[in-house]
Amino acid sequence: MKIESVDFFYLKMPVIRDIGDGSQDALVVRVRSGDLTGWGECEASPLVSIANAVCPPSHSACRNIVEQVLGVEIKTPEDIAVLNQRVRARGMDIAQTVHTFSGVEIAIWDLLGKKREEPVFQLLGYDTAYPKTPYASLLFAETPDKTYEAARKVQSQGFRAVKFGWGGYGRGTVENDRDQVHAAREGIGLDGTLLVDAGTVWGEDVEAARQRLAALEEVRVTWLEEPFIGNALHAYRELKGHCETIKLAAGEGSQDVFAARHLIDTGGVEFIQIDTGRVGGIVPAKIIADYALAKNVTFVNHTFTTHLALVASITPFAGVRSAEICEYPFEATELAKSLVIDPVVPVNGQIVLPEGPGLGVEPDLGTISEFLVEVEIKLDGKVLYRTPLV
Amino acid sequence: MKIESVDFFYLKMPVIRDIGDGSQDALVVRVRSGDLTGWGECEASPLVSIANAVCPPSHSACRNIVEQVLGVEIKTPEDIAVLNQRVRARGMDIAQTVHTFSGVEIAIWDLLGKKREEPVFQLLGYDTAYPKTPYASLLFAETPDKTYEAARKVQSQGFRAVKFGWGGYGRGTVENDRDQVHAAREGIGLDGTLLVDAGTVWGEDVEAARQRLAALEEVRVTWLEEPFIGNALHAYRELKGHCETIKLAAGEGSQDVFAARHLIDTGGVEFIQIDTGRVGGIVPAKIIADYALAKNVTFVNHTFTTHLALVASITPFAGVRSAEICEYPFEATELAKSLVIDPVVPVNGQIVLPEGPGLGVEPDLGTISEFLVEVEIKLDGKVLYRTPLV
Repeated sequence: MKIESVDFFYLKMPVIRDIGDGSQDALVVRVRSGDLTGWGECEASPLVSIANAVCPPSHSACRNIVEQVLGVEIKTPEDIAVLNQRVRARGMDIAQTVHTFSGVEIAIWDLLGKKREEPVFQLLGYDTAYPKTPYASLLFAETPDKTYEAARKVQSQGFRAVKFGWGGYGRGTVENDRDQVHAAREGIGLDGTLLVDAGTVWGEDVEAARQRLAALEEVRVTWLEEPFIGNALHAYRELKGHCETIKLAAGEGSQDVFAARHLIDTGGVEFIQIDTGRVGGIVPAKIIADYALAKNVTFVNHTFTTHLALVASITPFAGVRSAEICEYPFEATELAKSLVIDPVVPVNGQIVLPEGPGLGVEPDLGTISEFLVEVEIKLDGKVLYRTPLV
Repeated sequence: MKIESVDFFYLKMPVIRDIGDGSQDALVVRVRSGDLTGWGECEASPLVSIANAVCPPSHSACRNIVEQVLGVEIKTPEDIAVLNQRVRARGMDIAQTVHTFSGVEIAIWDLLGKKREEPVFQLLGYDTAYPKTPYASLLFAETPDKTYEAARKVQSQGFRAVKFGWGGYGRGTVENDRDQVHAAREGIGLDGTLLVDAGTVWGEDVEAARQRLAALEEVRVTWLEEPFIGNALHAYRELKGHCETIKLAAGEGSQDVFAARHLIDTGGVEFIQIDTGRVGGIVPAKIIADYALAKNVTFVNHTFTTHLALVASITPFAGVRSAEICEYPFEATELAKSLVIDPVVPVNGQIVLPEGPGLGVEPDLGTISEFLVEVEIKLDGKVLYRTPLV
């Protein structure tokens, strides 16, 4: 099967709010071969990644994505792994390359699954996709009272696990942060799994993070996520020394297998969170899932966007029974909610991957048309790129 | 001094060859405040970084560069450090952010130096810019004979140090690689400093690299650069265990202080090579220079482009007397050679930084006009970006 076309669709909400909600726009990728169409999504700044897809070369290790992918013959999962290596090598000096290629790679997996009439998780070697317990991802509200209300609402909808993050957490006083996490615990009840995401707010300031640990452990938070910027491994390692019951989680910014390995081996995180739409696609995410399993670390998807991204990010650890929890976008925008025709909804409080073929979800072309941003890039007056027809 | 404008100029050679020559295009940045103009350069894919400079926001940590910089008040070096942190935090989820901001940050340093009528190296706290011994960076030629000729030519021009890299090195047989490095040594003579850059050719394959060590040590190569992709720290560490006289060098791909620290602390490199145009500018490069000094590791600039980039990349370690060597583009394109009015040429085989104010080199506006690519980006029919007047 030869890749005959690669197209990008930049979707966005009419208004983008200045909050940590990653579902306000999307970059959807379509690849085609003969009668078949595969779909993927980049967790990326859409315009930057479109420029990366088509940019003129700068030199032999600074070349665009589309020219590496068009015309390539894909017959097996191994062919996708080889393509992955090639795109990285040929685009090494463009920082955006991995973000952009992620969505393309996911679309190619979808295409291969459709061609072979198998779900992608089976192409990865998993017999079964085990059900996962979804946690609802929410932003901390402006006040503890509002956070309490938000937690109540999620709990009443049957979620057994909730993650609060971003908002003002970590930016104000230790006392206010304590009130916030207590409110969250009260809202979800004693039995629920509570997770907290600090959104890298403390940079590499271990002491600032350490001051919040007592309150987090009081309310039995399972993990503290991204207290520091993703690459501050020494800070993670040092904070871990102060943790009694709580574990550290990180990894959503990982752009390759190595970054995830370093977080595990040097940083000491016990939950490794991978976004298939950023790490370079399903190939590196699966390698990380295998590595985590071998190191007794729990792999978790990072997903704050659409159900296309959700399925792509659960697939790499679908068959790992011990990795029981998955991130599940709860307050996504209209765009993200309506992107696929067949969303993945919890059944008896559990998420089960569709059985394919491919990824098993199909975009709604009406949604793509409705939220589409038409992009045109000209160099010296000549059109280099124009958004294709949906 | 308030930043009143930030402009980008994409320059390129008429033909881009598919070789490892990073001087075939350039992204030059101009910032203005009142009557003053500062200049910088990104080591980046120009079109991708222009998109990054102006892209619509996706969410609170996925925002463009220009909106973070325009109108900001810069009075001191500390203000630039604060801006650096802010741009990283607000652009965290756009992989290209650091590449793009690097050139902007360099231009702001140039502007501040001009405002305060001091060279940038003094703003960094160095009293003196010590002379550096430049090494000429060349690509391995197609045959050992041609590599020998190239080495002779450089040697005859007074260079005491030469680095060969890329080309076919590491892709063919061990014997051919041995012939290449022997030819390079013969060409530069017994006294010259010889360096070899493998350009990440072995991925993370330690054995492939190990097989080349004997030949490299026979001809007394000072460092082997980038045998592996920059983040494969375990491979660097393992190869180091096989090195007798040769040292490892890496770091040009570093996008933050942490990546460089990890190469030093975990990877065991003894030369840390930083490109100010990629790492986020002069602030992080100076922090790395300080860290390297404390760890007995030698800081070296990475520069394969213009003399604007050259000065910006030497500045962070200008006052470190023990870091004696600097990379110096030798076979740059016409574009790169003619970008500044006042190139930095070796005097008695040594490079001395200009005394400022600012970076002390000024772009030739004629060169910018000659090689300029006009860029226009439209979203939904409205112009988001158009190349400004030179």
